[in-house]
Amino acid sequence: MKRVAIFGATGYTGFELIRMLLAHPGVKLSVLTSEQYSAQPLEQAFPPFRGKLDGVSFGKMADLASADFDAAFLALPHTVSSSVAGPLLARGVPVVDLSADFRFRDIPLYESVYGVAHKSPDLAARAVYGLPEIHRAAIRETRLAAVPGCFPTAVILGLYPLFAEGLLDRNGVVADCKTGVSGAGRGPALGFHYPEVEGGVRPYGLPKHRHNPEMDQELSLAAGEPVAVTFVPHLLPMVRGILATCYATAKPKVTPADVEASYRKRYGNEPFVRMLPPGMLPSTKDVRGSNYCDIAWRFDEGSRRVIVVSAIDNLVKGAAGAAVQCFNLMSGFPEEEGLRSMPLFP
Amino acid sequence: MKRVAIFGATGYTGFELIRMLLAHPGVKLSVLTSEQYSAQPLEQAFPPFRGKLDGVSFGKMADLASADFDAAFLALPHTVSSSVAGPLLARGVPVVDLSADFRFRDIPLYESVYGVAHKSPDLAARAVYGLPEIHRAAIRETRLAAVPGCFPTAVILGLYPLFAEGLLDRNGVVADCKTGVSGAGRGPALGFHYPEVEGGVRPYGLPKHRHNPEMDQELSLAAGEPVAVTFVPHLLPMVRGILATCYATAKPKVTPADVEASYRKRYGNEPFVRMLPPGMLPSTKDVRGSNYCDIAWRFDEGSRRVIVVSAIDNLVKGAAGAAVQCFNLMSGFPEEEGLRSMPLFP
Amino acid sequence: MKRVAIFGATGYTGFELIRMLLAHPGVKLSVLTSEQYSAQPLEQAFPPFRGKLDGVSFGKMADLASADFDAAFLALPHTVSSSVAGPLLARGVPVVDLSADFRFRDIPLYESVYGVAHKSPDLAARAVYGLPEIHRAAIRETRLAAVPGCFPTAVILGLYPLFAEGLLDRNGVVADCKTGVSGAGRGPALGFHYPEVEGGVRPYGLPKHRHNPEMDQELSLAAGEPVAVTFVPHLLPMVRGILATCYATAKPKVTPADVEASYRKRYGNEPFVRMLPPGMLPSTKDVRGSNYCDIAWRFDEGSRRVIVVSAIDNLVKGAAGAAVQCFNLMSGFPEEEGLRSMPLFP
Amino acid sequence: MKRVAIFGATGYTGFELIRMLLAHPGVKLSVLTSEQYSAQPLEQAFPPFRGKLDGVSFGKMADLASADFDAAFLALPHTVSSSVAGPLLARGVPVVDLSADFRFRDIPLYESVYGVAHKSPDLAARAVYGLPEIHRAAIRETRLAAVPGCFPTAVILGLYPLFAEGLLDRNGVVADCKTGVSGAGRGPALGFHYPEVEGGVRPYGLPKHRHNPEMDQELSLAAGEPVAVTFVPHLLPMVRGILATCYATAKPKVTPADVEASYRKRYGNEPFVRMLPPGMLPSTKDVRGSNYCDIAWRFDEGSRRVIVVSAIDNLVKGAAGAAVQCFNLMSGFPEEEGLRSMPLFP
Repeated sequence: MKRVAIFGATGYTGFELIRMLLAHPGVKLSVLTSEQYSAQPLEQAFPPFRGKLDGVSFGKMADLASADFDAAFLALPHTVSSSVAGPLLARGVPVVDLSADFRFRDIPLYESVYGVAHKSPDLAARAVYGLPEIHRAAIRETRLAAVPGCFPTAVILGLYPLFAEGLLDRNGVVADCKTGVSGAGRGPALGFHYPEVEGGVRPYGLPKHRHNPEMDQELSLAAGEPVAVTFVPHLLPMVRGILATCYATAKPKVTPADVEASYRKRYGNEPFVRMLPPGMLPSTKDVRGSNYCDIAWRFDEGSRRVIVVSAIDNLVKGAAGAAVQCFNLMSGFPEEEGLRSMPLFP
Repeated sequence: MKRVAIFGATGYTGFELIRMLLAHPGVKLSVLTSEQYSAQPLEQAFPPFRGKLDGVSFGKMADLASADFDAAFLALPHTVSSSVAGPLLARGVPVVDLSADFRFRDIPLYESVYGVAHKSPDLAARAVYGLPEIHRAAIRETRLAAVPGCFPTAVILGLYPLFAEGLLDRNGVVADCKTGVSGAGRGPALGFHYPEVEGGVRPYGLPKHRHNPEMDQELSLAAGEPVAVTFVPHLLPMVRGILATCYATAKPKVTPADVEASYRKRYGNEPFVRMLPPGMLPSTKDVRGSNYCDIAWRFDEGSRRVIVVSAIDNLVKGAAGAAVQCFNLMSGFPEEEGLRSMPLFP
Repeated sequence: MKRVAIFGATGYTGFELIRMLLAHPGVKLSVLTSEQYSAQPLEQAFPPFRGKLDGVSFGKMADLASADFDAAFLALPHTVSSSVAGPLLARGVPVVDLSADFRFRDIPLYESVYGVAHKSPDLAARAVYGLPEIHRAAIRETRLAAVPGCFPTAVILGLYPLFAEGLLDRNGVVADCKTGVSGAGRGPALGFHYPEVEGGVRPYGLPKHRHNPEMDQELSLAAGEPVAVTFVPHLLPMVRGILATCYATAKPKVTPADVEASYRKRYGNEPFVRMLPPGMLPSTKDVRGSNYCDIAWRFDEGSRRVIVVSAIDNLVKGAAGAAVQCFNLMSGFPEEEGLRSMPLFP
Repeated sequence: MKRVAIFGATGYTGFELIRMLLAHPGVKLSVLTSEQYSAQPLEQAFPPFRGKLDGVSFGKMADLASADFDAAFLALPHTVSSSVAGPLLARGVPVVDLSADFRFRDIPLYESVYGVAHKSPDLAARAVYGLPEIHRAAIRETRLAAVPGCFPTAVILGLYPLFAEGLLDRNGVVADCKTGVSGAGRGPALGFHYPEVEGGVRPYGLPKHRHNPEMDQELSLAAGEPVAVTFVPHLLPMVRGILATCYATAKPKVTPADVEASYRKRYGNEPFVRMLPPGMLPSTKDVRGSNYCDIAWRFDEGSRRVIVVSAIDNLVKGAAGAAVQCFNLMSGFPEEEGLRSMPLFP
């Protein structure tokens, strides 16, 4: 049994990590930290898990960071993660970080996008981008996995095989994304106040959302040439789920069979990517609460336009589920451990 | 044309007042105040009304309280209203107050319920409870109307004829109420953060919600004896609407025909109360965006139990619409002026 | 490994049974039937479970009723269940029935409420009402469990300890219930069409809903005298969850400590009933996707009024979860097997 | 006073027409038809308008088509409209049609897209596409206006000035649209059953939705060369609203100032198009219940990519509101009559 700590356990990602790790047969939840709720008793801070957290240490990070545990999940704000990860790694604790701090290969770009100086650029250089569908081997070897952003997960998983197989023109790629509100976190703000969200939809983050460079980084790596995605996120009146609708242009002579083959080649054995059969389209409801990414595509040969639609649960495959998947790879557990729960439908 | 000021114009009630008063042929919106948004340009502070507020003065209350206007709506927090109303009345401006400050006949009770000393008990004594279906004549004569709370409006309108006609046992009255989130106001808080509300329902305010004494006050007046309602509000995943389901016991010998007659007598000519035909039940969707209160009842003669269900839009008949209705009565306008817009369905 | 059949697998209860049984280590899903979707390939009929149902037999009930399996769940319409159960029991297959057919001890009452002749009154006499918190011992011994209705589950669990301990007056009990739309099943109808439901709330089923007699039956049994609940259900704009707000009157001399003691006595060791600590109230969001029933109560000593609030997921503890719980008891599995997944929050 | 008939009055568009025409000072609602609800009393068929439809004739179309009225709105299914319009026009009644029957200039294309033979190709040739922002003069002169589809309205209004001023490359235009469920009409179906929609998002209609040719027709006309939009609609968990996010490429040398100027030139005096100030983005909530179309744009000079976002209420500017706007133009009323109600926010 691995004793596990979750830093930042009272946010939505923290809750989701708890839900999954309580279902993980190789894990014992050992430490939960929260800066905001630590004064509350456990059963008030975690109503859904009432009765299942007995014996867990709960408190502020400063009081628990040096407690005894075997692995740590950091569900912390960016810049905080990068200062917490170092000491943990130094004492031999593997770290799965869910912030943006270790996702960028280009540190100056990180600093420009997030508007801060990076606190541990040396660590960042050793981190692995935690998308097992692309970097599985490296994740197995690392002590520091950087879980991808939720939007990048949906967009990259949708387009990666096509770029990796050289099927797409690198120009003119559009990723129009729709997200539930949980992606904005648990901090109340006018833009996420219930009456302001219910019954409406709006774009945000234009012209450049922070998740854009992550997409560009990974798709450029896959393509072997620079890819710059035009990315627009939209806030929807729902809690969980991201749907990415991606528009790209096929290179000359590329056929639908090539597209089909690229997905089969890259995802044929993936436990958490489901290519939909012809005639079906993804819905975020079909993956809610699960670690699946559902993908479908259409190819209009007249216009050479390829449309790829992918759906994930932003808190699972887009955050906590991907984190547990990385943890399993890093720890030698079966990759699906703790992630077997099926979607909650309806 | 009456020049009208709205104090506290950037809350939900303020928005609703603007929507209605823009449709009122006898009103010119003259002054809007906001403590929180006044630094923004008008078109940013009021996106739905972009282009329709040219020429309106917008700023903090301190800067606009002594501007020149003919009537004032106070959509302010309790305790603030009671200090603002006096100076306005002193210079001859009639006031429609939407806070709780002037609703109570029993000032010590107000002070106990709201946990503050009342700032203008003398004014409170002259205020009229702004429910035209009960106090129409007095509202016509007053300079200070106290618009009822949203829950009391739904519950009182549902039960008033039955108590006024002496049909109900005063004991054991239950008012189980369901409300949309806009009733909690526009201030972000965890309990009203979108992901915490969507897809769930919860009670709150137990055992004693602030609106309880208002119900007791008006129903006791109607009954001529003390009535103490057991009231439980519930927060629903919707923006607008209150549904009150009231349970009471009929006095001996009371018949369904008596119930029917009491409603016909009291509401037969009411412009904004709609008694539903047999077989139909109220839905908040049928009144959304309108000033209607829809009511239906069932009488189980075996158990002597009377069930009354009433539905309102909490921001209209439960706040801004009732305020405009009072204003019309106080100003000599037709009572329906500005209130003719039909429900927005679906 | 028990080979299990689900009859009526493409309704919401069927989906939920699949979700749970896929997580049950002692179960192999063997047969799924559907009258409506059986012409579709498995992966189209069950999108959320795509890839996890390989090898399962899927077809119409007539074609699969005599297949080889060890236990059957009937998620069928009432009257259908009562004709299907007999042959299964006759060949030794234990049955967990989710319809109303076997819930009533009083067959004429069943026939009056459902407007049909009962097809197997003899079987009904041998069935056990599948609420383990009351009938655990009998469920262990039966071959035919009748899973309670969703509303009765919430109301009975809320009030049972108080009636069983003789604390409540049998008169004047009100159960005001709020339900998500999944309780109405998967068949499209105007009343459950999205635009008719979103953003509104309405009561239905007045004056007498079919679930009312179930509540009366079980609470009368507990009380040892006839209890007739006044029950009004309300349809809310949400998918899952029932919140029951129950109002009753304490008998003379009953104290809050008596109430507290009754719940501790009856539910102190229950795995799926969670009594909330003082100051907290149930929310359906805290139990969604789980088999928990969360309960809190308030006692107003002045009015002698006891208010009990209980929350369940109608598809889990109110249907499929209770069914699996019964199945576990009938089959000798640990009672929590397959039911350990935590609530999905938010 | 014009006596007006609404054919197909019990669908969502019919309801919205009623709401607006009740607020229109120059209109008397005279005839309402419904094939499905005509057996019900008026007050049951139209709960939101209870009490406001006295004296209106209500029944099946066959019984009321030859009643006496001055103008007709056809909120009928396609193919039905084209057979009803002729006799009305023949007896001098001007017709505003909300179906697709008269929108296409290319009849064979209509027949291919809708899979039916057109019943009145001659009438179609005389109809005017009812988008006043483009065809105002022609609408004033016609007796037959074809109200645009909801998606085309949002997309065309967003892109029209840019194509009309020759600023955009005609290739590679993407229109990613998000719609509320009311656009699917009032007929219950599994895809619009509440539990199937709430909390999720999914694309549909791929690869070619019926509204695509309308966009192409009008934008090609504006551009003076063929434009083929890649259009993907998405179903969102909300009732009203369409948000169109359009991606296009600016021609060489085009500057942001050109974009700004094109919108000012085309929409500077439009009563129902609101160009948002810099820094703001459209939300469907800011237009709900109103006839406004809110538009904002961003120009990324590096990639030459122009992103245009437009928001409408699909039932108002996307259907009933546009119809009333056409009716006003055709009848000599002020264009805004009946359309002055402000957005219902929140």
